[in-house]
Amino acid sequence: MQESPIPIPWPSRDRYLTPFLPLVYVAWSDGILSETEMGRIRQAIGESEDLPASAARVLESWLRADSPPSPEALARLEASIRRAARRAAPEELRSLVSLGVAIARAEAVDAGGWATAKGLRVLGGVEELLGVLGGEAARDLAPPERPVPPQRDSDGPTAATALQRIMTGDEDERRLRTRVLELLSDPRIRVPDGLPTPTARKRVLAAVRRLAAEGLGKLAFPTEFGGTDDVAGSMILFETLAYGNLSVLIKFGVQFGLFGGSVHQLGTRRHHEMLLERIGSLDLPGSFAMTERDHGSNVRGIETRADYLPDTDEFVIHTPHPGAEKDWIGNALHGRMATVFAQLHVGGEEHGVHAFLVPVRTRLGRPLRGIRIEDCGQKVGLNGVDNGRLSFDRVRIPRRNLLDRFADVTPEGGYRSPIVSPGRRFFTMLGTLVGGRISIAAASVSVAKTGLAVAVPYSARRRQFGPSGEAEVPILDFLAQQRTLLPALATTYGLHFAVRSLITDYASADSRHTPPRVEALAAGLKAYASHHAQETLQNCREALGGQGYLAANRLGVLREDTDIFTTFEGVNVVLLQLVAKSLLSKYRESMGDLRLWSMVRLLAERAGEEVARLDPVRSRRSADEHLRDPEMQREALLFRESRLLHTVARRLKRRIDRGMDSFHAMNECQDHLVHLARAHVERSILESFRAGVERCGESGDGTAARLLGALSDLYALSTIERDRAWYLESGYMEAVQTKAVRDLVNRLCRELRDEAPALVRAFGIPDAVLAAPAALDGAPG
Amino acid sequence: MQESPIPIPWPSRDRYLTPFLPLVYVAWSDGILSETEMGRIRQAIGESEDLPASAARVLESWLRADSPPSPEALARLEASIRRAARRAAPEELRSLVSLGVAIARAEAVDAGGWATAKGLRVLGGVEELLGVLGGEAARDLAPPERPVPPQRDSDGPTAATALQRIMTGDEDERRLRTRVLELLSDPRIRVPDGLPTPTARKRVLAAVRRLAAEGLGKLAFPTEFGGTDDVAGSMILFETLAYGNLSVLIKFGVQFGLFGGSVHQLGTRRHHEMLLERIGSLDLPGSFAMTERDHGSNVRGIETRADYLPDTDEFVIHTPHPGAEKDWIGNALHGRMATVFAQLHVGGEEHGVHAFLVPVRTRLGRPLRGIRIEDCGQKVGLNGVDNGRLSFDRVRIPRRNLLDRFADVTPEGGYRSPIVSPGRRFFTMLGTLVGGRISIAAASVSVAKTGLAVAVPYSARRRQFGPSGEAEVPILDFLAQQRTLLPALATTYGLHFAVRSLITDYASADSRHTPPRVEALAAGLKAYASHHAQETLQNCREALGGQGYLAANRLGVLREDTDIFTTFEGVNVVLLQLVAKSLLSKYRESMGDLRLWSMVRLLAERAGEEVARLDPVRSRRSADEHLRDPEMQREALLFRESRLLHTVARRLKRRIDRGMDSFHAMNECQDHLVHLARAHVERSILESFRAGVERCGESGDGTAARLLGALSDLYALSTIERDRAWYLESGYMEAVQTKAVRDLVNRLCRELRDEAPALVRAFGIPDAVLAAPAALDGAPG
Repeated sequence: MQESPIPIPWPSRDRYLTPFLPLVYVAWSDGILSETEMGRIRQAIGESEDLPASAARVLESWLRADSPPSPEALARLEASIRRAARRAAPEELRSLVSLGVAIARAEAVDAGGWATAKGLRVLGGVEELLGVLGGEAARDLAPPERPVPPQRDSDGPTAATALQRIMTGDEDERRLRTRVLELLSDPRIRVPDGLPTPTARKRVLAAVRRLAAEGLGKLAFPTEFGGTDDVAGSMILFETLAYGNLSVLIKFGVQFGLFGGSVHQLGTRRHHEMLLERIGSLDLPGSFAMTERDHGSNVRGIETRADYLPDTDEFVIHTPHPGAEKDWIGNALHGRMATVFAQLHVGGEEHGVHAFLVPVRTRLGRPLRGIRIEDCGQKVGLNGVDNGRLSFDRVRIPRRNLLDRFADVTPEGGYRSPIVSPGRRFFTMLGTLVGGRISIAAASVSVAKTGLAVAVPYSARRRQFGPSGEAEVPILDFLAQQRTLLPALATTYGLHFAVRSLITDYASADSRHTPPRVEALAAGLKAYASHHAQETLQNCREALGGQGYLAANRLGVLREDTDIFTTFEGVNVVLLQLVAKSLLSKYRESMGDLRLWSMVRLLAERAGEEVARLDPVRSRRSADEHLRDPEMQREALLFRESRLLHTVARRLKRRIDRGMDSFHAMNECQDHLVHLARAHVERSILESFRAGVERCGESGDGTAARLLGALSDLYALSTIERDRAWYLESGYMEAVQTKAVRDLVNRLCRELRDEAPALVRAFGIPDAVLAAPAALDGAPG
Repeated sequence: MQESPIPIPWPSRDRYLTPFLPLVYVAWSDGILSETEMGRIRQAIGESEDLPASAARVLESWLRADSPPSPEALARLEASIRRAARRAAPEELRSLVSLGVAIARAEAVDAGGWATAKGLRVLGGVEELLGVLGGEAARDLAPPERPVPPQRDSDGPTAATALQRIMTGDEDERRLRTRVLELLSDPRIRVPDGLPTPTARKRVLAAVRRLAAEGLGKLAFPTEFGGTDDVAGSMILFETLAYGNLSVLIKFGVQFGLFGGSVHQLGTRRHHEMLLERIGSLDLPGSFAMTERDHGSNVRGIETRADYLPDTDEFVIHTPHPGAEKDWIGNALHGRMATVFAQLHVGGEEHGVHAFLVPVRTRLGRPLRGIRIEDCGQKVGLNGVDNGRLSFDRVRIPRRNLLDRFADVTPEGGYRSPIVSPGRRFFTMLGTLVGGRISIAAASVSVAKTGLAVAVPYSARRRQFGPSGEAEVPILDFLAQQRTLLPALATTYGLHFAVRSLITDYASADSRHTPPRVEALAAGLKAYASHHAQETLQNCREALGGQGYLAANRLGVLREDTDIFTTFEGVNVVLLQLVAKSLLSKYRESMGDLRLWSMVRLLAERAGEEVARLDPVRSRRSADEHLRDPEMQREALLFRESRLLHTVARRLKRRIDRGMDSFHAMNECQDHLVHLARAHVERSILESFRAGVERCGESGDGTAARLLGALSDLYALSTIERDRAWYLESGYMEAVQTKAVRDLVNRLCRELRDEAPALVRAFGIPDAVLAAPAALDGAPG
């Protein structure tokens, strides 16, 4: 049987007991103490020789699990402790003990005896028993009421302006960009999100018409047809349009890039003369009809037929079965003509996929005879774009409607082509897609920029949680938030430079024969950038919490609209395999399987040599100056690419030598091939990024160059970190180094945290175009 | 100067030249040969003593880069080779050389001389020079026209039925589930996607009303108020409703789970008598008003005030500034009463967050005086739910409207609570959220099931690409597609068992004090499952290509609707930190920071002991029987959790010892804490999964048990694989073992590929509820 509990006179003004108050409060406020723990504390008190027996008995009764103080008494106790603690000197907040003494003083209780070393020892012993960290608890009780710190945002305008200059190339480009950004605020072009589909389609059509009226539809066409022959410019235009409504962007791309581009690049002079001006002004809306329901990725397998009839000098375009219907065709409901891809049959011979101009509707919009057009129906996003299905019932078109730049049929039914290899011919005709892929990569980067331009300022402003008793901190101070946003920011910068450099290479190449290296990088960057955009938007959505779920903040709509970016213009995993094949064949005739196998053999034989390059000292070096050395970073990415190339070759060879066919061999190594492709893309991005940093350094802007350098470090190191399992498995790095990489990524995130708002301002997206309330300064946090 | 080229008589019937045809065709079809390569081949031919000079000259001219054959001739050549090859014997397809001989025979050319060993050697030499793999090329030219293999789908119905039985618990549960699934096909409950917001809200309200009329709103309430006291049942109900429209689900959850649950769990008898029946029948629609604009995650920081006025025996509910508005409140436009969380002030003392019943609208729907309600506006998803903002201008409510189960105010203004610690009291009052979190976890699993039930059958049916000349293969045969879907399928199964077991634990616990272990796992599984649902839907969307972008296939809509699952009922990263803190304090008073620090110290001191457990032999064992040993898998996950716990404790201690405050110490280790939480959740999932496998084995169904076992292997190993960097860094595994894990994951994917359709059928989602055209057998591939 226990004694009946002694009533507890909270708050106490007892000279012996008052100094114990913080300790008692903490014991109870920390949750229900177990009887064992209480017992141990009571015992320590009972054994103390410094405490009179009566005081010890009271104290013991205060610490009995079966007789807790009333919550009201506890609340009053807390209030009085906090009041006293607010006046305590900082050194008195070092422990519960010293705080207790301070409280006794504040309550004008003579605690003289306790303030001695001996007294403090007793109190300290009890505190230790409670197992709490005294200082922590004491500080917790005494909130140093610091003012809310001002917005941190160093080097803001200056660095942002300098960076923006670096990122927007020459004067022409800047002028085009500014013009397009102005147009994006034009109410005739600015299509709000969330309109009902029929309204959205009308508004989007009108917006594209307006852009065409500005002459922007013809940018890539030759000057003699009203254009400016500016391929790079047309891509910068596309990249900039991607800050606005994405249905407008995609419809624009279908009309001028795909439909116009196919006439321009696959047709010859007579087609250009007849059509390019009309296409560029949207006088002739048209479609690009390649994909079929049964054949999306495997374009070579499409089944629409084009049979030549020498008697009437015509082709017959025909859909043999429903699976061969053209599906997902953009501009399907507004288009009056389509570039239709079909298997060409001439005199009993099949010549593979060719492109034909097929009129599909009258000027008034009625489908022509033999042509069936259906709406695809509601989509996840991009509902402002009229995607549809097209099928052809023995539709006749004149022979001259074959786009005949790379192959021609004579009136007599002869077949001619300047490209002998059917494989090469097929991929040359698909060249239209290369420009499309680069454009999609560019647009994806813009979308990622938009996402970050919303999420970063919001995170720098929105406050939640904080040190006990202090003001809440901006959520961008949290490591998890930094990890979510800052490596994505670095990747976005890297992709920016990589896509810009690819645009330059593509625009300066001979349009007849895009270098395989450029083709491969176009496929790779499209896959990488579209995936990055998706991931970044999702992260930004979550980083904004509920605010991200408001349609008005655009992140959800952008994600829905760009979701299909990972699928169209080539499904990402298929594109990454193209990249890997291209690497395996060292860019020589990247598309020929047979040539590929001979290269695979060669590479497989050389695989062993790589191992010799491993360096046991380098693999353990973990100092910052080593990890932040651009040469080290580049070498690490190069090594990975090269090693993956050789090891996948070895795996493929082993299978082929066993008699496995190439399809199954490739499939068994698909994860490895995709990994190789990513490694290649990442290495290319880093190289473009570093080149950008160097240009920036040469231009003499130190702050901007330092920031860019730190971002490129973050890109390189977070890329290595994500794949550190591979680096460990390959022996290129040891655990001490990969851990140092992770640690440095964390520190780089902290280092860049304050600059992040300036870094997204450098994207130069005007508020009126960004148009997300959460991004704006005045908006609620 | 070269000789002028000799015209090439394609096809050739020359006895010397015909056997070279396949070689010549391949040389050209593989793309443009470089002049060097051509030269080398011509040289080999010229030096051959077996070829007459005239034939050699012709052959050389055929292989001159500057005089390619016409594409027409090449097409004819290809046709004739393919014709001949089709009749060749399999052994003749081993190389281009033997194929050439077969062609000569087919074209009735006497190739006698070439068929000798010597002749073949010459041809072989040339073939080698071309650097192609002869067999590959030959097979390529001679498609073995195999019939399309039938749908593979073994053990279909039987295994699916047995598995479904294992997964749906007892008879009661099955009955409830069946009933709900039937209701989900009821046109009054079935709300189509994509309706305009006002219509959707009306339809959703009507559907919830219909469910209430079926008595489903009261399931968790005590029997005396019309319920069945069936907490577990109410969660199974929620889980099953999640196969239907998610706005219906969430509105249902707000009304009965959050609003009803708060009255049930935070109120006392008089509240129950007055309200539970009316809430359960939707006679009284209501809201759960906790979140404020400035305080979402940090609930403790909410600023709405409730001041007690002893004079009138009332509380005054007040919104002090716009940031304290209640935000994102579900049922805001239909609700007539709200459970409002506010800071209680009694007689000048602050007692923390308490819940109050506040009438907000008249029966006719007009807001009451002092209450302002606004629509939140269009959201990314869940637009059928009426989320809104509520604010209070000195609104008076009677004292009895305090939900007083855990704290009461006396008429005189005294404060009483059975829970002494304010921290513990706060978290007990938040207990309503624990049930909500488990429900969201359960719903997330259902959504992941829906995604897979669409994507897996589609991938097993849709064909694209294939071995050269053969029928295309189902895309589920591709390793990348398997990797996208099958580990997600395994995780979904694992989560199913884990959530079920958590439901059982939660339902059987004392409702006054949910064990901290259950609280922690509820937070952890909510975070893990909601993230998994998002990721799986995204993967399924991409796995369906364009079909996934059709709104009709539901994946996009589901993703938009569940997107907020990662944010509401606790932002995932915040929840994972709760889990980590709970683990650090060994579940004792998980919420008290001070208790936490003493445990951190203890754990940090023990961190060294872990290392001794590393076993150099085990870390290299890579045989399947080792990796598929459930004990090995469990140990690997346990080790990770335990090691992460000790190492993060050490990192925290180091910081706290340096004098860093707890907030900053936690933040610097945030990634580590989140990692620990995931490790804990994954270990818990695996244990529940294995328990399910064992129950299945005991029930005597071998096939089902084998399948489940393989799935649990895939879950465990893909989890280890994803974190293999950590296993390597910690020294628990060596590269040889992590590589074996990756390889085994690939093989498990292949092993389960054929069973995958049966495995998703076992989810038991009726076609009418699934309602995605792409999932149906008759649908286009």
